[in-house]
Parts: sequence; C-alpha cells; structure tokens
Amino acid sequence: MRQALHTLSINTRRKGLLPISRPVLDWVGAQGIETGLLTIWCRHTSASLLVQENADPDVQTDIESWFDRVAPEGPHYVHDIEGPDDMPAHLRSILSGVQLTIPVSGGRPVLGTWQGIYLFEHRARPHRREVVLHLLGE
Amino acid sequence: MRQALHTLSINTRRKGLLPISRPVLDWVGAQGIETGLLTIWCRHTSASLLVQENADPDVQTDIESWFDRVAPEGPHYVHDIEGPDDMPAHLRSILSGVQLTIPVSGGRPVLGTWQGIYLFEHRARPHRREVVLHLLGE
Amino acid sequence: MRQALHTLSINTRRKGLLPISRPVLDWVGAQGIETGLLTIWCRHTSASLLVQENADPDVQTDIESWFDRVAPEGPHYVHDIEGPDDMPAHLRSILSGVQLTIPVSGGRPVLGTWQGIYLFEHRARPHRREVVLHLLGE
Repeated sequence: MRQALHTLSINTRRKGLLPISRPVLDWVGAQGIETGLLTIWCRHTSASLLVQENADPDVQTDIESWFDRVAPEGPHYVHDIEGPDDMPAHLRSILSGVQLTIPVSGGRPVLGTWQGIYLFEHRARPHRREVVLHLLGE
Repeated sequence: MRQALHTLSINTRRKGLLPISRPVLDWVGAQGIETGLLTIWCRHTSASLLVQENADPDVQTDIESWFDRVAPEGPHYVHDIEGPDDMPAHLRSILSGVQLTIPVSGGRPVLGTWQGIYLFEHRARPHRREVVLHLLGE
Repeated sequence: MRQALHTLSINTRRKGLLPISRPVLDWVGAQGIETGLLTIWCRHTSASLLVQENADPDVQTDIESWFDRVAPEGPHYVHDIEGPDDMPAHLRSILSGVQLTIPVSGGRPVLGTWQGIYLFEHRARPHRREVVLHLLGE
C-alpha cells in the first residue's frame, strides 16, 4: 500500500465553475496505483468542490444561478467587511462542500460518464486556490 | 492492509429515498475486514446519497418536500431539454452529495443508532443506478 | 500503514457551532502518523460537521441565521412529535453533512489557514454527541 500527495495551484479570475477533472486524472494516472482511494481537499472557505454534469454548459449556468438564489448577496449579513460577495461565498462553500473522496479502479477515479470535477470559485476577484490531492492504494 | 471494491446496481422507479444500508452492511460484513474505511460513491449527477433517520417515515416525507422547495421545478431553468425534473435533479444531488466515507470498526460502519444510508433518486422515471463501494483495512 | 480509531464525546448545550479543531488536531498529532488520511464521522442525524472560517465570529452568526432561513421551523412539517426544532435539525444536517475526510501531511490535517472544524448542533436542548475519528497512514 502506497500514498502520494500533491497540491494543485489554481488561479481563478471570477465567480463560477472551473473544470479540474483533467489535472486530477492526469496526476492519478501518473502515480502507478491501480486500486485505491483518491481524496481531494479545497483549502479555502470561499471556494468549494463540485461533481456535476460535464456535457451541457447550460447545466453550469443553472447551477450558478441557483447558488445566487439560495445564498444571495444582500444587506442582511453581519459579516460584510470583506465585501458583499464574501459572506455569500462562505455559505455557497457549505452548500457544495470542500472535500471529495473517490474510489480508484484501473488507475482512475470511478467517476460516472457524466460526472466532471469542478472547483467552484465564489469570490468575484481573482484568487490563487490550493487543492490538495491524496492517493492511497497499490 | 487489504482493499475490496464492489458495485451495487440499483433500479429506481420514481423520485424518493431508497434504503441501501442492508446491502452495504452485508457486503462490508462479508469482506472479513475488522477495522478500516468504507467509501460509497454514486456515479450519477441526478441521484445522490444521504444519511438520515431510519425510524419515523414522516422524516423522509419532510425531507422530500424540503428538496422540492429548495430546488423546485419551474420555467426558470436554461437547461430543460431532458425534462422539467432534470435540472432540479442536478441541484438536489448537490444538496445531499454523491459520496460518503465511513470508518469501520468491529466489521461494520460506525453508523449511529438512527443513521440509515439512502440512495436519493431525483428523476421521475425509472433509472438503473450504480453505487461503488470501496473498503480498505485489515 | 497503520490505523487508529477514537471517539470524541461532546456535550452540547444549545444550537450553534462548536469548534473541535483543537481536540481533533491534538489526537492526530499524538498518533505518530506523518502522512495519511483523517476521517471524521458524526453519528447523528440532527447534528453535523462543518469546515468554515475560524477568524471573524460574525461569519458564524451569519451561518447560523442562513441555516434558520433555508430550513426554518414551522407548522408545515409532518414529523413534529420530537419538537419544532427536530425536523429542521434533520434538514440542517443534510445541508452541512456528517462526514469529512482530510489528507494529513507533516502529522496534521492539511486545513487551510482560515479553515476551522466545527460540530454544528441543531437541537435546542443539551445533547451528548459522538464524533468518530479514523486515521490511516504511516
């Protein structure tokens, strides 16, 4: 049983979904681990991880609108010193979560056909985000 | 340290919660692993996993109504080519998530007394769903 | 590769966020495992786990208000035999989830600078909560 750790550094430019399946699958594929467990951890409280449909881009538009509705900007937050998008960003991170753990088989995560992995940036301004990958297996 | 992988194939008939604790616990129990880590992965973007009360069926009724309210059907979605229940299904999957990782002790997941594991189908029509189980331990 | 298991027993007094980073990090640090995977499991359906900002307490106030709005108390639940706060407590548990899996590096979970781990109590009355910690690595 072996382990491998890696950190992806991702520059975001604006709010929205950023596909990260490619760098994640590439890294897993390079570790020479056939069967195991992949964990992805987003080290932030205003960006999160999401597994969702990778086919029709309209799905992503609707997801972003829904997050806007469920955790809207507004004057009703106590915490507003970091800008109007900061508190909603914390709430949206809770909604989608900062962690994924995926079984690995045949050297790749067992994602379904339509499942893509995304980093979900909730802040308006550019940020540098760190996503830690941990792989365990043999 | 050993690993085991298995895929549950589950036929759903309609929207709603389907208990899967039994097949999950049976499979874990048959692997001869006393202490370890169980990961459950749902390979879909319109069905999800949920851990919730397994006692009063009214709780499940209220959960399903709440999902209807938080991510309702309606004419406001851009993505509507797969039917009115498809986009809400994606959003409801985000709300409950597609992954669970549970410590295993004494040959079984450390679920609390009232915790049951459910597959949550969000589409109206019957679907064949795949849930991957990964067990690691000794 | 080694494993360790531990259960934190936490007495809650009221609804709200209770920081648990300290006991979690202390326990992980004492296991002598440099690199690995930490899993935290909350054995309840009316309390949950949350990773969120550990700096400005106003963030916690806004998080608690948001949970009140998204899953409010009210007369519209079928399940009401355990009190008006019980069904909302189940829904709020779904919203934040009962499980976290975090890579461990250098003997500690790779939490970001602003990430704190919280037990989120959703019931009004005092409860005794069990949080299981599982560590795997070497």
